[in-house]
Amino acid sequence: MDIRAVNDLSFEEFVNIFGNLVEKCPIVAATVWSERPFGSFTALEKAIHDFIDHLPQSGKEGLLRCHPDLAGRDLQRGTLTQESRVEQVAAGLDALGSEEASRMERLNDEYKQRFGFPFVICARMNDKATILHQMTERCQNEPALETLRGIEEVKKISSLRLHSIILVDTPRL
Amino acid sequence: MDIRAVNDLSFEEFVNIFGNLVEKCPIVAATVWSERPFGSFTALEKAIHDFIDHLPQSGKEGLLRCHPDLAGRDLQRGTLTQESRVEQVAAGLDALGSEEASRMERLNDEYKQRFGFPFVICARMNDKATILHQMTERCQNEPALETLRGIEEVKKISSLRLHSIILVDTPRL
Repeated sequence: MDIRAVNDLSFEEFVNIFGNLVEKCPIVAATVWSERPFGSFTALEKAIHDFIDHLPQSGKEGLLRCHPDLAGRDLQRGTLTQESRVEQVAAGLDALGSEEASRMERLNDEYKQRFGFPFVICARMNDKATILHQMTERCQNEPALETLRGIEEVKKISSLRLHSIILVDTPRL
Repeated sequence: MDIRAVNDLSFEEFVNIFGNLVEKCPIVAATVWSERPFGSFTALEKAIHDFIDHLPQSGKEGLLRCHPDLAGRDLQRGTLTQESRVEQVAAGLDALGSEEASRMERLNDEYKQRFGFPFVICARMNDKATILHQMTERCQNEPALETLRGIEEVKKISSLRLHSIILVDTPRL
């Protein structure tokens, strides 16, 4: 799919394809559709990131709260979104030893208790070891800083999801 | 569930219960969780409405684009959210005659073509006759006015969904 094909999509098709670039927040894609035509995929990516950056602090926290725990209940129960499942599996989070699993659960809880939103990291750019390390480190951050840190990860995730749609779809056209 | 019980919910429980007050936009509930404690359900309702009102014009359009067509493909295929299904059925939209069905399909398309978002109306406050009438009338509106008109309906829908959760849950406590 090239950018001209993207610009020709109805809002329903667009939201259907790009609606989970930001986890469980189809409003992001549904909003940036207004900005068509996009000159390039980079312009589309920038529109997504701009929407996120312009959210007020509470909206940024809200966006983080739409994310699942890493190696949490949704992974165990099979209720993750397709995108999240692929990312968590790629980072090896479906194959934790029992000690790693309890450590991650403890850190997830500690993080949520401290910040009021879940720990978000771009799992595709990490593995279970770096994730556990980052969880420990970031638990020490100041809340305002950590919101922005989480939001940077959301933007990385959305960019990789966008690129994966483009890659997957290219051979079809 | 009284408001004290609501204020005691973790963000995960809160988003789980109130995440579809605004159709497919859990970010709304996930954001207003930051404003706890709520003094009353009216305060929670106001926080939801304030979030919606503070969205920029494109965000309001995006929010409308997260809504399904009335009597559209999702109703036929059984892919509506539970809340939308109940509302559309209550308005008799699952039992349209073939002439009414084609008229509604034509008006849905005309509306989306003109405004770039779907026709949104609080189905619980209407029936198929008033809905068809409103579709015809509102198709004549100016786009900027019609965005606000649609957003007013989103707020009515969210209020009725909130009241239905409270009603359903009250006997349990």
